Amino acid sequence: MKPFDLTETCVSSETLIQGNLLHVKRDSVRLPNGNLSQREYVMHPGAVLIIPLLPDGSLVMERQFRYPLHQTFIEFPAGKIDAGEDPLETGKRELLEETGYTANNWQFLTLFHPCIGYSNEVIHIFLAHDLTLGISKLDEDEHLEIFTMRFSEAMEAMSSGNITDGKTMIALFLAQKYLGKK
Amino acid sequence: MKPFDLTETCVSSETLIQGNLLHVKRDSVRLPNGNLSQREYVMHPGAVLIIPLLPDGSLVMERQFRYPLHQTFIEFPAGKIDAGEDPLETGKRELLEETGYTANNWQFLTLFHPCIGYSNEVIHIFLAHDLTLGISKLDEDEHLEIFTMRFSEAMEAMSSGNITDGKTMIALFLAQKYLGKK
Repeated sequence: MKPFDLTETCVSSETLIQGNLLHVKRDSVRLPNGNLSQREYVMHPGAVLIIPLLPDGSLVMERQFRYPLHQTFIEFPAGKIDAGEDPLETGKRELLEETGYTANNWQFLTLFHPCIGYSNEVIHIFLAHDLTLGISKLDEDEHLEIFTMRFSEAMEAMSSGNITDGKTMIALFLAQKYLGKK
Repeated sequence: MKPFDLTETCVSSETLIQGNLLHVKRDSVRLPNGNLSQREYVMHPGAVLIIPLLPDGSLVMERQFRYPLHQTFIEFPAGKIDAGEDPLETGKRELLEETGYTANNWQFLTLFHPCIGYSNEVIHIFLAHDLTLGISKLDEDEHLEIFTMRFSEAMEAMSSGNITDGKTMIALFLAQKYLGKK
C-alpha cells in the first residue's frame, strides 16, 4: 500500500528564542488537509554518544546532574557536534574531554532521533574500543563523575530503573546486540 | 565510593516561552563549585507510549510526519498526559483516539527520560494486549496512518535504519525482552 502523503509544508518561520543553550523556532505550516497550523520546536546541532568499552568488558560511564529533571543520571559520555565537525571527531573530542580516554578503534553503530515531537536532534552512537587513559579536559563549570560499570551491572541498572536516560538505554541495548552479551 | 554532590540549585526562574506547544524556562542556578550559570529547558507534562499487541503477535503502529525533522516516522502510538490524568488512562485514551483500538489487558513496562539535557519529559511505556477494534477519534488536523507490522519486521526496520524514533526503539527492545522474541 502506498503511504498517504502526510507532509506539512512551511509557510513562514520565526525564531522565538536564540538563547545561550536553546534555539527555539515557531513555523506556520500547511497541513495535508490544507488547513494552517503552528509548530514550535528546538533547533539542535546534533550529538554523539560514545560507548567506551574497556579490555575487561566493562564500560566507562558518567554520573551527571541534569537540571531539567533535578536529578543525577547515569549516562554514557556524549556531547554536541560543533559547527562543521564530523560526528566521529565529536566522539573523539568528547570522550577525551569528559573522561580522559582516547580509543584506537571506533565503530559507528547507528543514529536515532530522541525527541521527534519538538526537536530536530539526531544522536550518532559509536562504540569505542582499545582505550588509553590520559587526562580529561573538563571546563571549570562542568561537573561530572566518571566511573566504570560491568556490562551486566549496567543492564541490571536499566531493568531496575536506575538507568532511565533514553540515549543510554538505546546504546546499552545496541551494545548488547552487537557484542552478543546476555 | 560515595558519589560527589553534583546538585545544581535554583537561584531564580523565568518563563521564556509559553507557546501553543512549548513551555520554555530559563533558570539561574548555583553550580557545585559555587559559580552561577544558566539552564534553559522545556517543561513537558509527560507522555505515554503504548505497544499494541495483536493476537497474531503483530504490532499496531503509526506513520506520522514530524515537522522538526521534515520526515515521516514509524512510531508506536503515544501522547501527552492531560493535567491530573493517570498515565494508564492516558494510554487508554490515546490508543483509542489514534488507532480505534481498546485493550483488555494493560501492563506497565517502564518509564524513561528521552531528552535529559533540555526537557523534563518522562515517557511511560505500556504493553496493551487483547485488542478490540472500534473507531478512532482523530482531530480534523491530526494526520497519521495506522498499519500493522510483524514483530520481526519492526526489529528489521530498526536494524536497517527505517525506525529511528528513540521512544519506539526503546519500546521495541523492551517488548523483545518481555515477550522473549528473537
